[in-house]
Amino acid sequence: MILVLKEKYSREEYNKLTESLKSMGLQLHESRGSHTTIIGLIGDTSAVDDEHLASLDIIETVKRIQEPYKNANRKFHPLDTVVKVGNAKIGGGEVSVIAGPCSVESKEQLCSVAEDVKRSGAVLLRGGAFKPRTSPYAFQGLRDQGIKLLLEAKAETGLPIVTEIMDISHLPLFENVDVIQVGARNMQNFELLRELGKTKKPILLKRGLSSTIEEFLMSAEYIMAGGNENVILCERGIRTFERATRNTLDLSAVALLKTLTHLPVIVDPSHATGIASLVKPMALASVAAGADGLIIEVHNDPPHALCDGQQSLTPQAFDDLMKSVKNIEPYAYKAQA
Amino acid sequence: MILVLKEKYSREEYNKLTESLKSMGLQLHESRGSHTTIIGLIGDTSAVDDEHLASLDIIETVKRIQEPYKNANRKFHPLDTVVKVGNAKIGGGEVSVIAGPCSVESKEQLCSVAEDVKRSGAVLLRGGAFKPRTSPYAFQGLRDQGIKLLLEAKAETGLPIVTEIMDISHLPLFENVDVIQVGARNMQNFELLRELGKTKKPILLKRGLSSTIEEFLMSAEYIMAGGNENVILCERGIRTFERATRNTLDLSAVALLKTLTHLPVIVDPSHATGIASLVKPMALASVAAGADGLIIEVHNDPPHALCDGQQSLTPQAFDDLMKSVKNIEPYAYKAQA
Amino acid sequence: MILVLKEKYSREEYNKLTESLKSMGLQLHESRGSHTTIIGLIGDTSAVDDEHLASLDIIETVKRIQEPYKNANRKFHPLDTVVKVGNAKIGGGEVSVIAGPCSVESKEQLCSVAEDVKRSGAVLLRGGAFKPRTSPYAFQGLRDQGIKLLLEAKAETGLPIVTEIMDISHLPLFENVDVIQVGARNMQNFELLRELGKTKKPILLKRGLSSTIEEFLMSAEYIMAGGNENVILCERGIRTFERATRNTLDLSAVALLKTLTHLPVIVDPSHATGIASLVKPMALASVAAGADGLIIEVHNDPPHALCDGQQSLTPQAFDDLMKSVKNIEPYAYKAQA
Amino acid sequence: MILVLKEKYSREEYNKLTESLKSMGLQLHESRGSHTTIIGLIGDTSAVDDEHLASLDIIETVKRIQEPYKNANRKFHPLDTVVKVGNAKIGGGEVSVIAGPCSVESKEQLCSVAEDVKRSGAVLLRGGAFKPRTSPYAFQGLRDQGIKLLLEAKAETGLPIVTEIMDISHLPLFENVDVIQVGARNMQNFELLRELGKTKKPILLKRGLSSTIEEFLMSAEYIMAGGNENVILCERGIRTFERATRNTLDLSAVALLKTLTHLPVIVDPSHATGIASLVKPMALASVAAGADGLIIEVHNDPPHALCDGQQSLTPQAFDDLMKSVKNIEPYAYKAQA
Repeated sequence: MILVLKEKYSREEYNKLTESLKSMGLQLHESRGSHTTIIGLIGDTSAVDDEHLASLDIIETVKRIQEPYKNANRKFHPLDTVVKVGNAKIGGGEVSVIAGPCSVESKEQLCSVAEDVKRSGAVLLRGGAFKPRTSPYAFQGLRDQGIKLLLEAKAETGLPIVTEIMDISHLPLFENVDVIQVGARNMQNFELLRELGKTKKPILLKRGLSSTIEEFLMSAEYIMAGGNENVILCERGIRTFERATRNTLDLSAVALLKTLTHLPVIVDPSHATGIASLVKPMALASVAAGADGLIIEVHNDPPHALCDGQQSLTPQAFDDLMKSVKNIEPYAYKAQA
Repeated sequence: MILVLKEKYSREEYNKLTESLKSMGLQLHESRGSHTTIIGLIGDTSAVDDEHLASLDIIETVKRIQEPYKNANRKFHPLDTVVKVGNAKIGGGEVSVIAGPCSVESKEQLCSVAEDVKRSGAVLLRGGAFKPRTSPYAFQGLRDQGIKLLLEAKAETGLPIVTEIMDISHLPLFENVDVIQVGARNMQNFELLRELGKTKKPILLKRGLSSTIEEFLMSAEYIMAGGNENVILCERGIRTFERATRNTLDLSAVALLKTLTHLPVIVDPSHATGIASLVKPMALASVAAGADGLIIEVHNDPPHALCDGQQSLTPQAFDDLMKSVKNIEPYAYKAQA
Repeated sequence: MILVLKEKYSREEYNKLTESLKSMGLQLHESRGSHTTIIGLIGDTSAVDDEHLASLDIIETVKRIQEPYKNANRKFHPLDTVVKVGNAKIGGGEVSVIAGPCSVESKEQLCSVAEDVKRSGAVLLRGGAFKPRTSPYAFQGLRDQGIKLLLEAKAETGLPIVTEIMDISHLPLFENVDVIQVGARNMQNFELLRELGKTKKPILLKRGLSSTIEEFLMSAEYIMAGGNENVILCERGIRTFERATRNTLDLSAVALLKTLTHLPVIVDPSHATGIASLVKPMALASVAAGADGLIIEVHNDPPHALCDGQQSLTPQAFDDLMKSVKNIEPYAYKAQA
Repeated sequence: MILVLKEKYSREEYNKLTESLKSMGLQLHESRGSHTTIIGLIGDTSAVDDEHLASLDIIETVKRIQEPYKNANRKFHPLDTVVKVGNAKIGGGEVSVIAGPCSVESKEQLCSVAEDVKRSGAVLLRGGAFKPRTSPYAFQGLRDQGIKLLLEAKAETGLPIVTEIMDISHLPLFENVDVIQVGARNMQNFELLRELGKTKKPILLKRGLSSTIEEFLMSAEYIMAGGNENVILCERGIRTFERATRNTLDLSAVALLKTLTHLPVIVDPSHATGIASLVKPMALASVAAGADGLIIEVHNDPPHALCDGQQSLTPQAFDDLMKSVKNIEPYAYKAQA
């Protein structure tokens, strides 16, 4: 971290600043020009609050050189983290696919989709029990009943399950859920992240609609700081001026994340585009870019889905997608070790 | 709501659609051209899920004419809502100012700022006890201890208090808090909104970083649908490509909100800009645009504030701002009744 | 196009509106409900100015069903357009790669890079002669001298060339240039587009930093309306809140464009990301998503490039990229005919 | 400017870098820590190409301290620039209002509007002769005929005129135009800016849809670098995810620009919002924030305007707006000298 001091400041301010920095265990390297004094901070600066520093009278500007995240940082953990879920492994070089309906609607629907996606090669079953909806008047999910159905589908098919949590108080319902999803709208629900950090459950953390890559990693850091290293990152599209697609899928974020962090990175092309016909090309592009997996919405009867039917694939379309994914996987980008 | 049907569809699909719409109490007006069939829906369409309709095979496009919010809609409640908090009134034609430090730090700090802002004309005291911070390593607020200090400051100064809630489980701590703030990051924490709808407490709802005006109103609708009509909307800047300011203050949203809803609309120029020297011009602009109030960060010693010192005003600067606000208020925009 | 009329209007306004629409050769299908009158317009509505309609007193809302572009619309030209440049063909199912330095710097540099990229499989040579730079104090390109060097490189290597035009008055200099590039900042320089529509030259049209997909196609339509059908669209990243990459590459736009238009669509991963190490993964992702080609910055000595060295590949890295592109191409997404 | 060197580099690279910097007349202040070497550059760094530096192998990061613009920088020209147009003065403490129709349509229309806005206090007449339109099929303006009509209106009313240029080749037509407008889409048409820098005409430069404040100032710098200091900056809304308004008016940019530059800053609330009923509140907010002026669309018959009728005011509404502007002006924000 580099601090540029203002042209004029008092000895007292200077001493106060430098002593407080030294008390944090940092080394200070100072350079005095005729107009400018620059202080370089050497050491672990992840606990230094740069906004606070920037507000001090004595400081002109602050420039962070080191990333503000530690547990999630590939520099300190060069090897890929592999998150194990039942027999499935996410991260570490193979493409793992999660599939299932947007919402859990009934046992028949869920088991039918689960059997279908398992046959096509999916390794985890997804399904929404608690549904965050913009309107209080829209279908809000089957909630605890939905989780019960997911557990039944798991028992019948052997597929581990992933489903979204919307509030800390629901945590007991997730005891037998294999992977807990934190949705885009809750990416900065810090109380929830902190609580999930105390569990050992794998967490599927979705990027917020307007979250930077750094903020995304800081949210992972919240979970990891509590001792839970099983975090799977999921790019699901960001909000931009473009409205022809539901969101703008940011695939360079995937390639960049793979260099910044050791955590697995998967992609949700269904929510990113919101258009069923774009799911396959974006799934292939994600794999080509080096993603560790995909999460895809599949519904046995998309036009009658209770939510997000526009972006759901039929089991047949999903099967076709899986074949293409398997074909392209050997030629995907691999970052050099 | 207008539905345009696809050029080709089956009688069965058509019957299924129209019967389901009629069963919701809607009237259907149909127009058949040589290529296009258009159905106009008359009645209360706020409970109609337009995404679901759009995903049906038979539908080409859906266009909502009526707004999807009801309780918050000025069309159905033409008169301004006035939220009463102690002796203060927010909404209905006068500019009410909320002020205080970003974070509660100590009793001395809080009471000193409270006395100062009260003397300058603030009608509510703000102060963060629970602080949402991007980094798990940054200062997270004094939490329950912070709320205790706020209640002491209230007892000493007589100013009602507003402070942010971060999780439903903290609700009991807010029993004597006058106004509960929902921060930008929690604007779509629907479980929290629903719970707050069951209380009768005034809620200060901040706009999300990338929330549209319609989504903002739908979040207010979540609270109001539960029976709590005491919602104060707060524009606090949106995230755009511009980084010279912390966020981009969207003042046209304020003027537009005043036409769409009867709820009071206030502005937070401190978080919107992130720069102390821009707080006063943006406060004056907000008042000129017709805002019902302001929420301003004031700290007795900004360079040593534990958070957001860069955007905090000194009590002196706040006093100067209040004088200018009072001067400009009579010449502010008033929408015609 | 669908017009919803206001609840109250005069007979005179109604007659004026309907006669003016009929005089444009449109058929009107009307539906009168108890509160709402809806008019459906059947016929070629591309010349209808929807903003103008929307501003009429009698109109409540206007909804366009048909796209506002005609020449670029795949509905009216189902087969892929193939743009021929020398022996190269862009569009129609094969991945064509354009490569070369950001700026033309010297004959040695240009010919050396040209030989290298040709050997690796590039079919066109790119190089900037006129350079749009944010600062008037930055290197602005060799201008006419740069075009002379490009023509010499073309003569030596046989590679056709593509270079950017910045003003109509430079057009005579482009007489022997094979493909004229319109940069992102000029995508809505309508006078320039119109002028290029009068030539028969292939035009490489880059998407503007904040242009919607529809605006992008309307700019192609400007060129095509003048009689020049040889337009190549190029996605090069859009401007969003994310700053970790120079721009945000919008690959769903590529997949969507391929369904909306018959024009070839290529991708510029160099400008989109601004980071050399992300060029290869994004090139592979682009091909996987179904792009018709790539345009890549290659420099023989990136650290000493006069511009954009950060995002340029060495000839070796480009050769490696080309091998991977060739490997992945057979497994790329192909839209079903 | 501060350069942080990579941990490892060769003596040769180091010498090459430092000699090249010294040859630009810069002083170097160096600080060596155990891991990091930092070089501070003192002197005029506006001609230093930071992107180029950042691409060098030896460089870890580059941080600009000084602004990259010189002529436009308030630091070097503390006093407000006042642009004189006929008897009107823009900048320097008074609110100047420009008004007129979006498009010039006929002599009657233009003179009628001109007389009206003059009576209400406008000091310049605006009117579009060359119209940049998204669709090649929309009305493109009366072009040279439109300029002729503007000059006639000027002769009749005595109001100086401002109108938009779309291409360098049209410059001779602008000989008697008082102020040349550069539209948002041409803000980075650098060839045009450079050419306008050679004239002595006042230039009204509109901010691009997705241009940062710094890019905006760099475009002013292009004009000023050519010797023309008569630049008026105009904020007219930026493109964001919000679509309820045509653009998002960025009023904090106005307050910030007034601190960064000595140039006058005006606001266009008509294009910023696209909604006539929001023009007045945003005009008042702009004045309150410290803007030097406004540019407002006024049409004698908005519902029949050939473009942008939705955002045009009637002469009566404009007169009402002017009265409110005059009332609020004395209470507007003034930055302290």
